[in-house]
Amino acid sequence: MTALPLTGAPVALKLRAETEQNINALRRRGVVPGLAVVVATDNEATLWYVRSIARAAEKAGVNCAVVDLGPEARTEEITDALARLNADESTHGIILQTPLPPGVDADELMAGISADKDIDGANPVSLGRLSVGLEAFAPATARAVVEILEHYQVPVTGRHVTVVGRSAVVGKPLLQLLLQRDATVTVCHSRSRPLERYTREAEIVVAAVGRPGLVTGDHVRPEAVVIDVGTNVSESGELVGDVEPLSTAEVASALTPVPGGVGTVTTALLVLHTTQAALQLSEAMPSSRVVRAGSPS
Amino acid sequence: MTALPLTGAPVALKLRAETEQNINALRRRGVVPGLAVVVATDNEATLWYVRSIARAAEKAGVNCAVVDLGPEARTEEITDALARLNADESTHGIILQTPLPPGVDADELMAGISADKDIDGANPVSLGRLSVGLEAFAPATARAVVEILEHYQVPVTGRHVTVVGRSAVVGKPLLQLLLQRDATVTVCHSRSRPLERYTREAEIVVAAVGRPGLVTGDHVRPEAVVIDVGTNVSESGELVGDVEPLSTAEVASALTPVPGGVGTVTTALLVLHTTQAALQLSEAMPSSRVVRAGSPS
Repeated sequence: MTALPLTGAPVALKLRAETEQNINALRRRGVVPGLAVVVATDNEATLWYVRSIARAAEKAGVNCAVVDLGPEARTEEITDALARLNADESTHGIILQTPLPPGVDADELMAGISADKDIDGANPVSLGRLSVGLEAFAPATARAVVEILEHYQVPVTGRHVTVVGRSAVVGKPLLQLLLQRDATVTVCHSRSRPLERYTREAEIVVAAVGRPGLVTGDHVRPEAVVIDVGTNVSESGELVGDVEPLSTAEVASALTPVPGGVGTVTTALLVLHTTQAALQLSEAMPSSRVVRAGSPS
Repeated sequence: MTALPLTGAPVALKLRAETEQNINALRRRGVVPGLAVVVATDNEATLWYVRSIARAAEKAGVNCAVVDLGPEARTEEITDALARLNADESTHGIILQTPLPPGVDADELMAGISADKDIDGANPVSLGRLSVGLEAFAPATARAVVEILEHYQVPVTGRHVTVVGRSAVVGKPLLQLLLQRDATVTVCHSRSRPLERYTREAEIVVAAVGRPGLVTGDHVRPEAVVIDVGTNVSESGELVGDVEPLSTAEVASALTPVPGGVGTVTTALLVLHTTQAALQLSEAMPSSRVVRAGSPS
């Protein structure tokens, strides 16, 4: 058998329709949503990813500013850029793109993104609020996984999901989203050995570690649903996931492709989240003139 | 065989020695650590628990104020009390005790506890920071579990731990503490059926749901280590855990008793955390007079 490919395109299409509705509502308020991506690297794959976000945003009618501080940027420069964007009324969404220069504490910097504008759920406050069920933006990649499962009507309630990877941007927030949906969740990582002990038990396996070919057909049970979050650049320059697709597709019932799976949905979610943040921020301040006249805060 | 009882007393003893050192250091700074417990219930078991915290604090040399707002307290009264305690220089630790009156949103209120004084890790900010490895107080009950495992030299690195319960006060923060220590963690809850599918796979089982006798000998594998976080009042008025001790002790290699296990360590940790908060706060403000004169914030 060959696993059904769970492509991201139809999921992204639905999300873009929601984005368009938000853009129309914002237009009636005279608001153009704005996204800012702060970059401090010369990593080609990262810059390519940022350009793809910018293209998707502009195409949807969201202004996108890439704030490139260069690979030598220091903590204070990044802190200053974030503070400026937090205060900027035309910016509704902020992404601080990793990797950051060596010696820079990413977690502390992420904590400096205003929670209202934290559309990629990078601030630990967002993760904490998400964990207890309070309103917050989930990291787009983590939400992309549950959007794909929902779109393809893969039930998670009462199912066992094994998440391979415990990062703050995917594994940990995804775990919260899955627990909210009543899945039983196992979190694995590099010290979980043998890995198949945990992945073969699960009805759904999510691979999110950044190691090409980590999950193979030997790691999953027959009929499992496999979601590949990995985006690795192979030696030949191709984009490959964490899942070895040929052997896995022979065992699994469904598998997301790379590229064209989770990543496609992630980009659509970043744009959608920006319009949602713009709606919330413009609701909180119905007219910017009134706010300026009325209150210093 | 009969499981080794992992009693809390020796663990608490070690923690109280650390508390005493902190108290001495605070005394040299002229600071008496202060804990405030905000209560809004007439639940007898809860009030008993709060009195036991107060006794432990006073015995250690920590001032403890119980702010009893009564079972009819409304959201604004609780918010006001927390704001007052956040600003009060003689209060270094704040606990907002659950249960709270019906109609009161506990999660939103917990978010109002100053992170510096959140010695029971109840503010979602603390959980978020804990999740990404930033400095924060862990909920005392969650930390009590790992303190017991450490004291009794139960290895967790590379081991499979199944946590039954996904609460914001135990299951979720405990998961983070265990992942930090390189355990593979499965989180179960009421929709995880059959429960033994998950608990029998694990080398360590933690029961934290508040259902007497939920975990029995049939749920655990031979030689498993079982930690009972439950504190339920039985019909005859006794304190009982979530684990059925007789059948479980026949299969497990070690088991925490109730009472005298996790709870004993939890109380010691609340007092220790208060002294740690007092140290940090008094370091941040070496002299309260200077702060008053220098800055309005």
